[in-house]
Amino acid sequence: MTESGKPILYSYFRSSCSWRVRIALALKGIDYETVPINLIKDGGQQFSKDFQALNPMKQVPTLKIDGITIHQSLAIIEYLEEMRPTPRLLPQDPKKRASVRMISDLIAGGIQPLQNLSVLKQVGEEMQLTWAQNAITCGFNALEQILQSTAGIYCVGDEVTMADLCLVPQVANAERFKVDLTPYPTISSINKRLLVLEAFQVSHPCRQPDTPTELRA
Amino acid sequence: MTESGKPILYSYFRSSCSWRVRIALALKGIDYETVPINLIKDGGQQFSKDFQALNPMKQVPTLKIDGITIHQSLAIIEYLEEMRPTPRLLPQDPKKRASVRMISDLIAGGIQPLQNLSVLKQVGEEMQLTWAQNAITCGFNALEQILQSTAGIYCVGDEVTMADLCLVPQVANAERFKVDLTPYPTISSINKRLLVLEAFQVSHPCRQPDTPTELRA
Repeated sequence: MTESGKPILYSYFRSSCSWRVRIALALKGIDYETVPINLIKDGGQQFSKDFQALNPMKQVPTLKIDGITIHQSLAIIEYLEEMRPTPRLLPQDPKKRASVRMISDLIAGGIQPLQNLSVLKQVGEEMQLTWAQNAITCGFNALEQILQSTAGIYCVGDEVTMADLCLVPQVANAERFKVDLTPYPTISSINKRLLVLEAFQVSHPCRQPDTPTELRA
Repeated sequence: MTESGKPILYSYFRSSCSWRVRIALALKGIDYETVPINLIKDGGQQFSKDFQALNPMKQVPTLKIDGITIHQSLAIIEYLEEMRPTPRLLPQDPKKRASVRMISDLIAGGIQPLQNLSVLKQVGEEMQLTWAQNAITCGFNALEQILQSTAGIYCVGDEVTMADLCLVPQVANAERFKVDLTPYPTISSINKRLLVLEAFQVSHPCRQPDTPTELRA
């Protein structure tokens, strides 16, 4: 935390995992300070000695809050949910909570890790786009089907949940990797409804302290 | 659920994600039936029409319980924790809960997805071993450091938690991929202490209904 007691979010404007946490912080009205970690510049600032000491996985987001340091976006969101429960991001019904966590894990464990920067580096420049598109398509094929039985206005019912915090940044990645979204009408319409909400707008990659001028909106 | 009301676990003996759930079921004393899904045989039984209808991600584990179907191992474990809270797999202290979820997500989102069967198939036979070793080594380097500040007898303090349910199956994968565990004394000693517990033994890949005879112990 800062001297004034504000939480500190180590974040990269384009990181979809950071965006998930930024939405949670915005929805819950938690004031925080951003420390940008540029994953590209200087060979990747996440590899600096200082940052590695903070997060040995060399990844964003990392949140300093209440005297502790938490890594992993879903672990951060679950902590915020327990300590700052309003508005809630997990439904009251345990069966619906299971759906929310299932969708969140599908994205956070089944799609995003396969198309993140460090994996794409290993895959090599020539194969990157195909690899990323494949990972997203496989995941979205499943997700579209699952959402047909869980969704209301949003991913699970009619309240914004942790699943929605995972969906929107993943759709942004899909667009960045030029995935055809036509086969995913449910995903697309939920995404559209979420993007107009204030918390999704202020946390958007095009409106962060570290967003390069040419990408600002 | 079966007609008798028992939960059904769709599982593969060697799947590390299935093993996580088997440990949870064993610890909580939940009687269940196993439906084996062989990820190799018949070109992969997870690709059958019937199984895809059940789990569009074409992955194990999947649990049918209380009239619902849950995919994703951590979502399943969180549901079990809410509905069958004894013995607890998440500490009472929210800060320790955050550590448990952070370690669980590090393994379930940061290591396992990069070395699972479908990714290794894409990487190609020649590169598989190096790729898997690299994913596990990167993750374990971070995990070893994190555990030094969270561990007691087990991953977080002295009680078995969800983090331990992720650790043991991941160490088994590391051994299968011939990762040198010498640089990870904390991981290794926690793993050793957990492996002797009954719930970890009955759920072990070498003791499942679908374990091939030559691998049984």
